[in-house]
Amino acid sequence: MPNPTAAMLVIGDEILSGRTRDSNMHYLAGELTKHGIDLKEARMVSDDHDTIVTAVKALSSNHDHVFTSGGIGPTHDDITADCIAAAFDRSIDVRDDARALLAAHYARTGAELNEARLRMARIPEGATLIENPVSVAPGFTLENVHVMAGVPSVFQAMVASVLPTLTGGAPLLSQTLRINQGEGVIAGPLGVLAKDFPDLMIGSYPFQKDGVYGANIVIRGTDGALIDQAMTRLADLFPE
Amino acid sequence: MPNPTAAMLVIGDEILSGRTRDSNMHYLAGELTKHGIDLKEARMVSDDHDTIVTAVKALSSNHDHVFTSGGIGPTHDDITADCIAAAFDRSIDVRDDARALLAAHYARTGAELNEARLRMARIPEGATLIENPVSVAPGFTLENVHVMAGVPSVFQAMVASVLPTLTGGAPLLSQTLRINQGEGVIAGPLGVLAKDFPDLMIGSYPFQKDGVYGANIVIRGTDGALIDQAMTRLADLFPE
Repeated sequence: MPNPTAAMLVIGDEILSGRTRDSNMHYLAGELTKHGIDLKEARMVSDDHDTIVTAVKALSSNHDHVFTSGGIGPTHDDITADCIAAAFDRSIDVRDDARALLAAHYARTGAELNEARLRMARIPEGATLIENPVSVAPGFTLENVHVMAGVPSVFQAMVASVLPTLTGGAPLLSQTLRINQGEGVIAGPLGVLAKDFPDLMIGSYPFQKDGVYGANIVIRGTDGALIDQAMTRLADLFPE
Repeated sequence: MPNPTAAMLVIGDEILSGRTRDSNMHYLAGELTKHGIDLKEARMVSDDHDTIVTAVKALSSNHDHVFTSGGIGPTHDDITADCIAAAFDRSIDVRDDARALLAAHYARTGAELNEARLRMARIPEGATLIENPVSVAPGFTLENVHVMAGVPSVFQAMVASVLPTLTGGAPLLSQTLRINQGEGVIAGPLGVLAKDFPDLMIGSYPFQKDGVYGANIVIRGTDGALIDQAMTRLADLFPE
């Protein structure tokens, strides 16, 4: 059975303006690979209602899971929850269990649960909350979309809350061989090898270091023995 | 007149598996912002022919410019040039001027211009070459799609070759104010400010450092005087 597929949607003007370099996609990619869920696509969009709704609909219908980051805080530019509700034609309002989490948190810290903070308890109808052990305000899952915060420490904690609840497939295994020859030399034999092992993914990632051209050849797949076999042939092709 | 819009397409299994953390999107975002081209969307896809063709068509018809990175080397997993040709229904073959560039380069370095290396001279019909001062093998522009390498040093050199040839708009200016109060306190007044300056983009980027909650408020737009005005009001709202 093929692994479940996933897409990620990174939401935020700050990514597209170049102000902030996203790190959540790279983190999620690694976690999904370990869990046996294949990340097939990632999109980065700005804080625009229609753009987000369109992307959520497209990704949700094309993949088993969608993970979003960003836009669930208390400020005016945090519009993700409303966009998710709109994408699935659901109502959205402050929900008692989410409000209770925030109320208890702010009671402890002595801050006021004001109107802005209460926005973080607005949850689309029918969603399940995602626990936030870092800063309490929850994420949520609606249909196959998992909505999480953009702050990396919170995003990572939410991924840790959600991932164990999802059925994974076979983890993707990989082995790497560094070859100190140019890709132009490697390419011919490597192409033959790739044809001989159609069930494996064989990638070539060139580098240039201290004037030496080379490439890291990465062989990936779910069958460890098959990877060993391909790696042995690769090593024979390019002895040190 | 509004600024030209752009999208980026990052191509490569290694990004989606979590092996490599993309840096080209962040680099391009900053360069486009300076040049007055608005990056509206970025997508990351795997080395899959149909996926790449579909994404190129969608992005090319929705934006003034599309920038791609990755998949133009000599190995079997380098399929970007063929995908671009397919997306625009063009033929693709080794082109004399691209072959001449490679031939001169390998003559200098003493390496053989073999079949694999010659793949890097395959250019879709009607494309314009993009200069590669780092490792010679050119990128190309077809219609409104600029096809560049994935290796960051080469990608950056190609961006430097292409960008001066594109008509930019007004550079996006920005000012940032760091406020050492939680977003829940900032959100109310900030929302009013955002409503009062509809021509500016006002974003709030929370942080937590050494136990202190705060947010960087970023005000962006093309009218410097208007940004000054909004920034003055913001500073008055949250005196140190």
